[in-house]
Amino acid sequence: MIYSDSDTIAAIATPSGDGAISVIRVSGPNSIPVVDSLFHGKSKIIDSPSHRIHYGKIISNNINTIDDVLVSVFRNGSSYTGEDSVEISTHGNMLICEKIISILILNGIRLAEPGEFTKRAFLNGKMDLVQAEAVADIINARTEASLRGARNQLDGILSKKIDELRKLLIDTSSLLELELDFSEEKIELIALEKVQFSLKNILDEVELLLTSFYFGKTLRDGINVAIVGEPNVGKSSLLNYILKESRAIVSDIPGTTRDIIHEDVSIDGYLFRLYDTAGIRFSEDKLEKEGVKRSRAAVEMADLVIFLNDVQQGVSKSLYDELCNIIPSKKIIIVANKIDLSEITGGDYDVKISALTGRGIRDLLNLLKTKAFSSGIYSEKTAIITSLRHFDALSRAKDSLITAQNSLNQNLSNEFIAVDLRNAELILGEIIGKVTTEEILNNIFSKFCIGK
Amino acid sequence: MIYSDSDTIAAIATPSGDGAISVIRVSGPNSIPVVDSLFHGKSKIIDSPSHRIHYGKIISNNINTIDDVLVSVFRNGSSYTGEDSVEISTHGNMLICEKIISILILNGIRLAEPGEFTKRAFLNGKMDLVQAEAVADIINARTEASLRGARNQLDGILSKKIDELRKLLIDTSSLLELELDFSEEKIELIALEKVQFSLKNILDEVELLLTSFYFGKTLRDGINVAIVGEPNVGKSSLLNYILKESRAIVSDIPGTTRDIIHEDVSIDGYLFRLYDTAGIRFSEDKLEKEGVKRSRAAVEMADLVIFLNDVQQGVSKSLYDELCNIIPSKKIIIVANKIDLSEITGGDYDVKISALTGRGIRDLLNLLKTKAFSSGIYSEKTAIITSLRHFDALSRAKDSLITAQNSLNQNLSNEFIAVDLRNAELILGEIIGKVTTEEILNNIFSKFCIGK
Repeated sequence: MIYSDSDTIAAIATPSGDGAISVIRVSGPNSIPVVDSLFHGKSKIIDSPSHRIHYGKIISNNINTIDDVLVSVFRNGSSYTGEDSVEISTHGNMLICEKIISILILNGIRLAEPGEFTKRAFLNGKMDLVQAEAVADIINARTEASLRGARNQLDGILSKKIDELRKLLIDTSSLLELELDFSEEKIELIALEKVQFSLKNILDEVELLLTSFYFGKTLRDGINVAIVGEPNVGKSSLLNYILKESRAIVSDIPGTTRDIIHEDVSIDGYLFRLYDTAGIRFSEDKLEKEGVKRSRAAVEMADLVIFLNDVQQGVSKSLYDELCNIIPSKKIIIVANKIDLSEITGGDYDVKISALTGRGIRDLLNLLKTKAFSSGIYSEKTAIITSLRHFDALSRAKDSLITAQNSLNQNLSNEFIAVDLRNAELILGEIIGKVTTEEILNNIFSKFCIGK
Repeated sequence: MIYSDSDTIAAIATPSGDGAISVIRVSGPNSIPVVDSLFHGKSKIIDSPSHRIHYGKIISNNINTIDDVLVSVFRNGSSYTGEDSVEISTHGNMLICEKIISILILNGIRLAEPGEFTKRAFLNGKMDLVQAEAVADIINARTEASLRGARNQLDGILSKKIDELRKLLIDTSSLLELELDFSEEKIELIALEKVQFSLKNILDEVELLLTSFYFGKTLRDGINVAIVGEPNVGKSSLLNYILKESRAIVSDIPGTTRDIIHEDVSIDGYLFRLYDTAGIRFSEDKLEKEGVKRSRAAVEMADLVIFLNDVQQGVSKSLYDELCNIIPSKKIIIVANKIDLSEITGGDYDVKISALTGRGIRDLLNLLKTKAFSSGIYSEKTAIITSLRHFDALSRAKDSLITAQNSLNQNLSNEFIAVDLRNAELILGEIIGKVTTEEILNNIFSKFCIGK
């Protein structure tokens, strides 16, 4: 679809469902005059200053009252989108919203695409691309920790870091370009060392950001935990205890639900998706069975496995071996259950619990949290990357930087090195949106909800 | 619960679910100072005039940014509730809303009860009780017609009618009271005739409103239509055709769904709930079967029955007799189906259709609409009553008026008559809220959603 960014757009901005009020958003050059033509209040909104609210009625064809509304007027300089905008607050009823939207469309306004309001905010310089992405992450955040992470991204922590790196690259390029005048000669030793040092620093920072991806992604999308064990070791009891304990059961993140039953819980503000694998084996010869397939898939995609054992029977060696065939052993937490029944605790357990009395379960949850999030380096307050797009760009930037480093070490011509540095700088620019294509933008904003 | 109407209250006003923005409503004497203490923007909202929007951040403990928000300020004279109010517009995320609500509660604001904002609007004279009830009806309306009905009620059409009747009653009482001075004498003939005439008029109007209840209720809650017929006459085909034809399938009205499967469709803006009775008999000896029970219940509660027959087999006399045992025959629409297969159309059909080709189905739909809504007297634009509360009050008013009329005809003392007229006037006052009790109010507003 070829839509112009100078169209006036409209969308319902509040969720559908039962509620007291709904809000329709309109943005673009015709937003104020068109809404004005439908609005009947004390004063005309076409004359309204920015940030004013007007009470009145939306009337179609000057006859039929659609609803009593509050109309908020935002002038281009100071609106979310950076354009003239109007918000219409109606009684909470989808019929009313749809009616008003249809009248707006009859008046030449078109329906907004997903994320189009935020896309315009980006295009009009109200935020950079990383911040625009953070808006979607804020809306989709299902736990406090993921919300805080997105919040800091919106506040510009990652943007600032990326911009710093870009500036360092530009400075380093300048050093080289100074030398280009003497390109027939060898680069002076001091300049060379300076460039090498600077490049090393930038590479370290890029590396740090790249490795933050696992932390960031986990923060955003949650950590997958498969509960595995022989039949009757208490897997379901454990799951139920955790569900009850955490209380804050979070709703599904749209689009990420798979064909495997899981429960999402928020433990101390962090999202954990718990998969009960129903006590079956994973061996290849049983793989045709649907349940085995699913359990295996749950383990394969797990970030951590709770390997549950009945303390009275000890660790199931055979199941442990099967597990190790599928995932690295460092992902496996070996747990003794039923310590209420027996104090015999031989065996190499990471943690001992009773899913019946709850004893030790807090230790287990803490261990999960530590293993998942305590890298010791990152937190929600440091610059972290959470999206595959950032990871991909940083990986490409890293490749260019390594090429530059190699060229430098091999005493290749400055032009070669400068090209790679410039390339890395452009790639970093992609992240915050200094350099973009329509394709990149569409890809980002199509993941938004309509009305944002 | 004993809550004070002078508390400051807060609630999430937008539906939960995925959306671009959410709105939190705060109302009461502390609304502006409390939100001001959490809000960090260019200017303090405590100094803001009414109907202004402020962009800023909600920050808890002066440290943690909860979200970027738009805060709208309404001063007591011109707010919805008639009190100082604030609306906080956040990113569409329930975690953010809940966080902000919890901070408001920590600052001495309490969670609003269902309908409490509108209750305050009523208590502060911003609308009468009938209009307050219309607000809930507008939010719950599932079709255009029910929305228009509620809209006109909010615009005061019913309130005006009730108020007119009250004034007529007061005038009539005055006539009598004038005569009370001469109470030992006989009422003058002219005055007597005047009072009789006036009373007759009022009674007629009350009667007209009472009989509008069926129309109003149907408009609001929809009309129940059971599709009944022998096996294989095409009941499911007909249902499917109507579903496809009407397109606008409306969502369930909360709380009214029963244990019988039905499909809600909007036909020309009117809500019809279609029950497929699955081709089973209703006779008593089969009543132990669950399906028979349900089908019978569907017919019993039906406003209309589509009695479907295969035109090639003629009208099923035995099923018709069974139907007539359950409901009055005037509710039964006798339909010939499969007229695409045969033109033999003997039999006394109300309408002939083909559920395969769609022929005649528009006639059937029009017949349903006519039977359900075309009283010839009422429309969405006349004063109609839609709620049982109004019906109950009007019935009691009618009783008082009839007593007054009898007393008048029996030449009883004026005092007797005046008491009954005064009583009828008070009862009408109940409807619009001139006279209320806490019980009446709680009963009305508890049916609202939270945040309205």
